Amino acid sequence: MSLAPAYLSPSNSPIEQYLRQLLAKHAGLEEGAVADYIPELAKADPRSFGICIATRDGHIYEVGDTRQAFTIQSISKALTYGIALEDHGEDFVLAKVGVEPSGDAFNAISLKPESGAPFNPMINAGAIAICGQISPADGQTRSEKILARLSAYAGRTLTVDEAVYLSESQTGHRNRAIGWMLRNFDILDHEPTDILESYFRQCAIQVTCRDLAIMGATLANQGRNPLTRERAVDPAYVHNVLSVMSTCGMYDYSGEWLYRVGLPAKSGVGGGILAVLPGQLGIGIYSPPLDRQGNSARGIKVCEDLSRDLALHLFANGTAPQPSLRLTYDGSQVSSCRRRPSRLQQKLRATGHRIRVIELQGELIFSTFEPVIRLALKQAPYCDFVILNLRYVMTIDEVALKMIIELKQTLSELGLQMMVCDGEQFAKVFQEAGLEQSMQFANEDTALEHCENELLKRIVGPDWNKLTPVSLKDCFLLSELDAEELAWLDGEMGTRESPQGDYLIHAGDPGDSLYLLVAGSVEVRLPETSNQAGKRIDVFEAGMSFGEMGLLDGLPRSANVVVLDDAVCRVISRPLFESLDSVRPGLKIKLLKRLSYLLSYNLRKSNDEVAAYRG
Amino acid sequence: MSLAPAYLSPSNSPIEQYLRQLLAKHAGLEEGAVADYIPELAKADPRSFGICIATRDGHIYEVGDTRQAFTIQSISKALTYGIALEDHGEDFVLAKVGVEPSGDAFNAISLKPESGAPFNPMINAGAIAICGQISPADGQTRSEKILARLSAYAGRTLTVDEAVYLSESQTGHRNRAIGWMLRNFDILDHEPTDILESYFRQCAIQVTCRDLAIMGATLANQGRNPLTRERAVDPAYVHNVLSVMSTCGMYDYSGEWLYRVGLPAKSGVGGGILAVLPGQLGIGIYSPPLDRQGNSARGIKVCEDLSRDLALHLFANGTAPQPSLRLTYDGSQVSSCRRRPSRLQQKLRATGHRIRVIELQGELIFSTFEPVIRLALKQAPYCDFVILNLRYVMTIDEVALKMIIELKQTLSELGLQMMVCDGEQFAKVFQEAGLEQSMQFANEDTALEHCENELLKRIVGPDWNKLTPVSLKDCFLLSELDAEELAWLDGEMGTRESPQGDYLIHAGDPGDSLYLLVAGSVEVRLPETSNQAGKRIDVFEAGMSFGEMGLLDGLPRSANVVVLDDAVCRVISRPLFESLDSVRPGLKIKLLKRLSYLLSYNLRKSNDEVAAYRG
Repeated sequence: MSLAPAYLSPSNSPIEQYLRQLLAKHAGLEEGAVADYIPELAKADPRSFGICIATRDGHIYEVGDTRQAFTIQSISKALTYGIALEDHGEDFVLAKVGVEPSGDAFNAISLKPESGAPFNPMINAGAIAICGQISPADGQTRSEKILARLSAYAGRTLTVDEAVYLSESQTGHRNRAIGWMLRNFDILDHEPTDILESYFRQCAIQVTCRDLAIMGATLANQGRNPLTRERAVDPAYVHNVLSVMSTCGMYDYSGEWLYRVGLPAKSGVGGGILAVLPGQLGIGIYSPPLDRQGNSARGIKVCEDLSRDLALHLFANGTAPQPSLRLTYDGSQVSSCRRRPSRLQQKLRATGHRIRVIELQGELIFSTFEPVIRLALKQAPYCDFVILNLRYVMTIDEVALKMIIELKQTLSELGLQMMVCDGEQFAKVFQEAGLEQSMQFANEDTALEHCENELLKRIVGPDWNKLTPVSLKDCFLLSELDAEELAWLDGEMGTRESPQGDYLIHAGDPGDSLYLLVAGSVEVRLPETSNQAGKRIDVFEAGMSFGEMGLLDGLPRSANVVVLDDAVCRVISRPLFESLDSVRPGLKIKLLKRLSYLLSYNLRKSNDEVAAYRG
Repeated sequence: MSLAPAYLSPSNSPIEQYLRQLLAKHAGLEEGAVADYIPELAKADPRSFGICIATRDGHIYEVGDTRQAFTIQSISKALTYGIALEDHGEDFVLAKVGVEPSGDAFNAISLKPESGAPFNPMINAGAIAICGQISPADGQTRSEKILARLSAYAGRTLTVDEAVYLSESQTGHRNRAIGWMLRNFDILDHEPTDILESYFRQCAIQVTCRDLAIMGATLANQGRNPLTRERAVDPAYVHNVLSVMSTCGMYDYSGEWLYRVGLPAKSGVGGGILAVLPGQLGIGIYSPPLDRQGNSARGIKVCEDLSRDLALHLFANGTAPQPSLRLTYDGSQVSSCRRRPSRLQQKLRATGHRIRVIELQGELIFSTFEPVIRLALKQAPYCDFVILNLRYVMTIDEVALKMIIELKQTLSELGLQMMVCDGEQFAKVFQEAGLEQSMQFANEDTALEHCENELLKRIVGPDWNKLTPVSLKDCFLLSELDAEELAWLDGEMGTRESPQGDYLIHAGDPGDSLYLLVAGSVEVRLPETSNQAGKRIDVFEAGMSFGEMGLLDGLPRSANVVVLDDAVCRVISRPLFESLDSVRPGLKIKLLKRLSYLLSYNLRKSNDEVAAYRG
């Protein structure tokens, strides 16, 4: 993008324009005071102010002092909670630290009277207990491990502010008291001294407003950093982290925060706020002056505005997932590329409605797939086959996967075959879930062909597909010719016999002949590309013809033609085709009429298909 | 569906199968005890057990005792909170009742020491204060109003269990104490006696498990009952109700509930639980035995299983909204239906890339529309026109609407025109937001034509569109004929002059003529249907021909042809067309060749379009 003109800079975006206005609106707010319980924190400039949004796909919008370093403080509590869960699992962690909001202030000791367990991991007592659960591993100390994991969240190597750490350690008498109280109740299973130093170091990790937004986006992205693609936390524990942030993240303002802002969040006395809109984005705010509850005063106001102005509240409108039913049609409206002799074609037209195609889209979860089950069961008495087309499906969660398998089972009990197509990206999960390979089709075309073949087998009998060579007069293109004309043409045309697998035509060849297929079958296939196998676009059987378009417009061949069943073709070359004008004008007229009819027929079919796709 | 066979009953659905298993799994659980603080409640059968899910579109899955009546009790608190918000607005309500979880049990008095305001509306003190805020209106008493509103949630007329009401009233000493305490702090502004009776009556409203699920679905559906379509609560306050349910809905188990189940919910000592997955569904559970915190013991277990098995946790995977970018292409890949003379067509092929079409889909909210802004700004230097196609867009929230308007403004400053098409359902909101009528197009076709015309105007000059009559030899179909043949045909063909607005062809007419347009222009339009105006599918100008397909295959006309600019057509009737075989075979061959070429050209174009739509 180095050639892009200046106006392309992101500052041009209405979103950055909005953020600049928001910064200006709240920059004058003088409420709150910089934390001074340790001398180092009191040095922060109260005018520092930054706002940053990081999207789930890693795009960053930032205004103000978004690159200025400050200490993470209590925001670290949310992230270390995830590490403890990974190290010990939910049951162990829950037994030692609750998840209930206490209604008390951030530095309250708040231990449950019976067990001594801290109410939740977002108060100091809970966070110290959690810190004690983080196991040193792989040659890393506890502190090194915490620093490495938080760095993964931020997508860069973070460091500890040693001055703040020392200051916290020297003045952390209350936290030491909490540590020993936790030891007393056996919440900590050994002496707290080391753990407390780890805890003080964890709080003194330096971050920027931008880091916080990216950390938030990492949580929004199921634990994977959207910029580095590194996994910062096991996705199985992301909902635990977000849940405690939702109920306990903003000290004794948490209830009102969820009510007004509606985002899982965590604040720190360093002046930072990290907020997450799950599945969508992360927000980082930096402004040191704190309100009575210990939250960044400007940060609260900015987040209230952001939530209202951008409709980010968890329970705002627009959170309904898109229905996964995209389109449905049946086998009388669409058909596979396999052209059938007209007697079979008629049978398919009459029975094609027994094939039901359901096109799905978006994210398949319980709520979006549930209506598909309803539709399929409603259609069941009228169908023999149900094809789920997954081309527009982006993700399938475990629940929807199970529902697909169960729907197949239920339909099978009702005598229906259910298959999926266009679901290559899900092949692995389908295999693990036990969906037979034979019920997975590369695309709708091959799935339709399978169903059509099955239908024809039932109606016509086992020999439905027997290919028999045809005489010239059975070729559609020659059907108006009389015996004399046929005999004459027979003498003039070339013959080409080709075994299975042979390429009759290569894409790019000059379009210089018309082929009448009198035995076997061939497939028209798009040229392969680096990322796609050659897609079938047509199948011809004996009695049909191909190659006429090149003869008419002189353009090179656009596709390959490959022999499926050993084929015999009669060939009308361009010189022969053109000489007919003067030599046999009557015959030429008959040929052109059939040709025009065929083109006209195919054009109507293609136009109908365009209309079907346009919906 | 009365003819549907028995196996179509919903019990066949894998979802009901699952719910039956879930019911069986937990039916044996003997934990907890039926509430007995008032004698009437103690009469409940501890074995009663029902599970019901109601989807946002009103489909009901139910197993067990889902039609058995019981009293709503504390679940009413969530719903009356919405009524108070409607009556007085957020600021007033928040000043009297907080939204902070107290960490205390359900019957704790929990008033804030400074103000006497109850911590939140889900504890008794808060609910009584909220009840006092509900204003009698329209001749309804407070109790009648509450009953009417809860009936709207349930979609049926609810009634009060008078025995339970009397029992509650006779034994409600603690609540009376709370009422007077609230009066003491001026949280209630008059004597509590009446309010308390309303409160006791509200708790004694009879509901079923099914009602609870539908009430939940109503909240999931932004306050509109999905069965009756009645508005039960102003959508502006739905997020407030869901927020307090999230943080305070399950007494002092609320934190752990959100952590484990992850759904806004409210329980009642009658044994009911109402849970909501916003935008998706409502859940109702009924099982009278209560655990230590006063929540239905089986209900908690069932909801934990439901949340895990169906991945319903608010922060589970699959909550990311689908990207709204569906497809993007430019005016060199697609073009309007307006056929252009070849000199203009060439110019459009060379410059069509300056028209950028962006197809959107799903729900437009901040996160889904934000990438569209990025794309549009990135494309800006290479384009003159941006068309946002809204055909697959389901909803546009206020934020996205504003962003659309701002993007148009930003692009306009960069010298680009931005327009929307296929957004008929949004016409009203666009108008209110100030989007000019002239920038809204009914469909992509007309939007493309507008851009093409603008491009041609810039390249060719103001006279680009001047229509000039053509001679017969300038008609593409006759371009191979020599002067003698043209003169002969001129004498044989009919002529038809038609003023603007005339129907040259009606859909259903026999296809018995081919038209050569020598002056003016015509539009091919699909027949109107009851719910759709006739859609334009083609435009022809002088020099072009139409109607050939009917002549070739004998099928009736599939569309209307309407004159746009006063037209002169030369007409080749079927008898003339057929007589050429013997009278002028050479001429016929030349005609058929051009005809085949044209059909072949259109077929290639149509096939390409099918390929573009298949992606």
